[in-house]
Amino acid sequence: MAKKITGGKNTAKANIREQKNNKLKNRGLKQERSVKKVDPVASKNKKPEKDAKKDLKVRFLGGVGEIGKNMTVLEYGKDILVIDAGLTFPGDNMPGVDMVIPDASYLTENRSRVRGIVITHGHEDHIGALPFIIKDLGAPIFGTKLTLTLIENKLKERGIENAKLNCVKAGGSVKLGCFSVEFIGVNHSIAGAVALSITTPLGVVFHSGDFKVDYTPVNDSVIDLPRIAEIGKKGVMLLLCESTNVEIEGSALSESAVRKALDSVFSENAKRRLIIATFASNVHRLQQIIDLAEKYKRKVVFSGRSMINIAESASKIGELFIPDGIVADVERLKYFKDEEVVIISTGTQGEPMSALTRMASGEFNKVVIGGNDTVVLSSSVIPGNEKMIYGVINNLYKLGAEVIYESLEPIHASGHACREDLKLLHTLLKPKFFIPVHGEYRHLKKHADLAKSLGMKESNIMIAEIGDTAVLDGKSIKRGEKFKAGSNLVDGVGIDGADSYVLRDRIHLSEDGLFVIVVGVDEMSAELTSLEIIGKGIAVTDEIINGAKANILNALKNVDMRKVNDESELASIIRRGVKNYLYKQTKKNPMILPVVMVV
Amino acid sequence: MAKKITGGKNTAKANIREQKNNKLKNRGLKQERSVKKVDPVASKNKKPEKDAKKDLKVRFLGGVGEIGKNMTVLEYGKDILVIDAGLTFPGDNMPGVDMVIPDASYLTENRSRVRGIVITHGHEDHIGALPFIIKDLGAPIFGTKLTLTLIENKLKERGIENAKLNCVKAGGSVKLGCFSVEFIGVNHSIAGAVALSITTPLGVVFHSGDFKVDYTPVNDSVIDLPRIAEIGKKGVMLLLCESTNVEIEGSALSESAVRKALDSVFSENAKRRLIIATFASNVHRLQQIIDLAEKYKRKVVFSGRSMINIAESASKIGELFIPDGIVADVERLKYFKDEEVVIISTGTQGEPMSALTRMASGEFNKVVIGGNDTVVLSSSVIPGNEKMIYGVINNLYKLGAEVIYESLEPIHASGHACREDLKLLHTLLKPKFFIPVHGEYRHLKKHADLAKSLGMKESNIMIAEIGDTAVLDGKSIKRGEKFKAGSNLVDGVGIDGADSYVLRDRIHLSEDGLFVIVVGVDEMSAELTSLEIIGKGIAVTDEIINGAKANILNALKNVDMRKVNDESELASIIRRGVKNYLYKQTKKNPMILPVVMVV
Repeated sequence: MAKKITGGKNTAKANIREQKNNKLKNRGLKQERSVKKVDPVASKNKKPEKDAKKDLKVRFLGGVGEIGKNMTVLEYGKDILVIDAGLTFPGDNMPGVDMVIPDASYLTENRSRVRGIVITHGHEDHIGALPFIIKDLGAPIFGTKLTLTLIENKLKERGIENAKLNCVKAGGSVKLGCFSVEFIGVNHSIAGAVALSITTPLGVVFHSGDFKVDYTPVNDSVIDLPRIAEIGKKGVMLLLCESTNVEIEGSALSESAVRKALDSVFSENAKRRLIIATFASNVHRLQQIIDLAEKYKRKVVFSGRSMINIAESASKIGELFIPDGIVADVERLKYFKDEEVVIISTGTQGEPMSALTRMASGEFNKVVIGGNDTVVLSSSVIPGNEKMIYGVINNLYKLGAEVIYESLEPIHASGHACREDLKLLHTLLKPKFFIPVHGEYRHLKKHADLAKSLGMKESNIMIAEIGDTAVLDGKSIKRGEKFKAGSNLVDGVGIDGADSYVLRDRIHLSEDGLFVIVVGVDEMSAELTSLEIIGKGIAVTDEIINGAKANILNALKNVDMRKVNDESELASIIRRGVKNYLYKQTKKNPMILPVVMVV
Repeated sequence: MAKKITGGKNTAKANIREQKNNKLKNRGLKQERSVKKVDPVASKNKKPEKDAKKDLKVRFLGGVGEIGKNMTVLEYGKDILVIDAGLTFPGDNMPGVDMVIPDASYLTENRSRVRGIVITHGHEDHIGALPFIIKDLGAPIFGTKLTLTLIENKLKERGIENAKLNCVKAGGSVKLGCFSVEFIGVNHSIAGAVALSITTPLGVVFHSGDFKVDYTPVNDSVIDLPRIAEIGKKGVMLLLCESTNVEIEGSALSESAVRKALDSVFSENAKRRLIIATFASNVHRLQQIIDLAEKYKRKVVFSGRSMINIAESASKIGELFIPDGIVADVERLKYFKDEEVVIISTGTQGEPMSALTRMASGEFNKVVIGGNDTVVLSSSVIPGNEKMIYGVINNLYKLGAEVIYESLEPIHASGHACREDLKLLHTLLKPKFFIPVHGEYRHLKKHADLAKSLGMKESNIMIAEIGDTAVLDGKSIKRGEKFKAGSNLVDGVGIDGADSYVLRDRIHLSEDGLFVIVVGVDEMSAELTSLEIIGKGIAVTDEIINGAKANILNALKNVDMRKVNDESELASIIRRGVKNYLYKQTKKNPMILPVVMVV
């Protein structure tokens, strides 16, 4: 971890109260919304309907202006092709939300035109929305073997059995309406990742998927550069290329470097127990650890539900080779000496219920951490997870373990192309037009700059946001009309369980707590018969409760109940009567919930 | 930013529901608590009272096992010396909390023995708790000029006027009870930072404060290595040394490197407007920018309340030199061409109400960002703030600005010693005993390892946690008794406005929302007269409300109201009656608040 607290920690924190009061506003409002705006410029450029049919439209439902929930749509004439359908995990401004998926209403409204959904690889940000959209769309899904296995597991969990899953090998092609889609093998941090070369009536659209260039991969083929060069030679109209690591100079580290580093860990810890945490879906990494376990004569113990599931699924379809007899159940750990096992675990991001987190907090009685354990985090830190991850590392150290993480040893390699790799792809493909994808705005901007530095004209590059349409006629790229797109929150029971009002309430409750004020009013006499106050999420004393009661009674004193029109009028009198008092006493603005009972 | 999303994003996220349900538990309970435990080992080692008087005790109230709220206590005989009194900012598990300060009840209980509070420098994590503890303690405070100025501002904000502030220069000394405290100038990311050499009856205790070694500082003296070497030569009993950057190889970057990089920014952006965000308290950095503004003939516009305040205070006491006529008010911006100004702004951490954040979101009408702006973030990313900071950067790019941040240009230098710097301090001081401070457990552990690698015996090193006491008798260091210590939450009106129950409720409310169920029961007939349900922070339909009512009525149907002992019994019948229904309908466990009104 190269980032540390440094320098002035008192920066601009003096006005905490002011900031906090505004946080609500900032948090509540900054979430994306489904929008239906018409870009005036685009409208002007819009062609009449008969010409428009000759345009290729590229619509962005997700994955631009964010890293997460990738979903892109190609549209020509009546044919619609969907590329990826991912989810993203909710931010701090979305308490209680399980996940966020693209608003796919554009597709459901045009469901009869959707020829298929092609998936570049099996990561959550590319497949996670499928369970929520496939029922409505019913379209066939295309992917490589591991990708489909992961999708199938995911759909089963949600009780979806009849999805049309179609396996395509890297190198294979599929025809979907007017689109001919070729799957091209690439390197990435999951097996079976592909780029897509999509031949449309207007020319070739090349979608990189998530990729890196690894000349010395482990248990994987090298990215199919010869085929990519060939496609480039024939001519590419549009490149959609991922931008994740565009800020990182040089080339992505090869998985072989990780192999070396992990081998050293095994050889240098010959007498110690090894626990290696990694992303479950990184099947190549699992294979390496299993290979090293075989070399160093250790049993392999899988720990964590998703680790066990994926190891099982991947070995069933031949993507993971597990030698006979090498796997031991976690229950049998006690029969082995420390030097006889390696535990492969989930929990690289400090997820509260993951195997590693529970080991570190001493809550996982099957694996009790001690002074003879070496724990390796063969993974990266996903931004936002720092505190949880370092919490786990601190706890492991406290239990006496050695911990290896992001040290000088290259125990993890990113799955994404760095600047030189991106330049290679651009140079091989020489696309006419370019839209950077899979990045926050800063990544897209820098990727656009990179393309310019390679000689591309600025007018041939478009930076897209969610809801944008790129319109291509073979000669130019233009920003088309905005369409309804945005985020759907999966919360509890299903999609849109929480809208922005619900979220705003949740944030308000979590920051300032709640006062419930129940007032009984006699129907006949219109007199106050009872008053009860309950505070939650805020420190209340009897004094405050009594003071609040006095203020409410005072506010109601001069009210002629017979003249009050309805309960909501009375409620707002109560709210006004007590609001300032509560702020003065608590320096908080708790949610005030008056309930008027006419009895 | 070298960290990116990479690899398997579907790791262990399948069991989101399970995790979420446990998050509450994990978040709610993991906060520190004030503890009063007696370490059985320590008790055995405890000496009889008459001998104990000859021991030096070092007590840790904060700053170990965390980066934040530094506070250490030295105790010999009847004399108590306090070093620093900092705050920390609340984590995700503390919604609504303003700040966290050390539980200083040990000191208030022993207030008559406290001879003074010495402050190493003016950062929040070293001074931020003073307004909350100084009234109770009344002890004199000692610090250098800028440190005291910042403390004075802070105390004034809280209405504290009569604190005893005593200025000591670097190189100066002060006698406090049996302790003689020498202030030694060090380099850090704030002016006036000092280490402390404290002569006690048992020997010298050296406290590094926050420091770095900068052989070529800007507007500052080089850390007083000759004096440190001299002190080392005479013999140091105990070293307390900061550990922030112990994971970073090599030496801290010099401020001169930053000077060069900033100069390039000025010369390469000769026709553009410059906006430089930095930590307001980094007076040396402010000085550099002002110097460059003078060199490149630009006016300086300060933006952000804390920036204006600190620039004013620092120039008043001579820590910042502002040439006559160079400062322009932000209101006068419109009279200058872009190339004639540099705006120095707060907001490096993406704080919602800071100047930079408001500029980026287009809400700051005094500085409207456009295509001719170059924005420099001359700062580091404090872990946890990534999303907010990159949000600001993305917004600046969207407005067309160029943004320079953490690029290959060294536009920021950390204020903390890296490994080689730490080795230098250890080598010059050659302490007999060592306690690493100012770090999470992983930092303390690695700093202890570093000391061992320099030849220190393991038994002479102690890793402390909050509430630990180190007992030194001149010959050995032992872990003494635990004492009452931990965190106090400043929430709304004051200290401990939120305890762990309040926080647990807030988190519960923010994750799952709330159902208020108001039931009216007739006093005479014991019959149900009314039933009202309000949902907040959860998506509720009329169907759910009606279903909930039906479930409650059903639960109450068989209850003989006359036999119900009290309202809480009825409340729990209601809660039980509706809980499962609500979970089934919403897949959430909302807080259920039954209110029984006997009318």
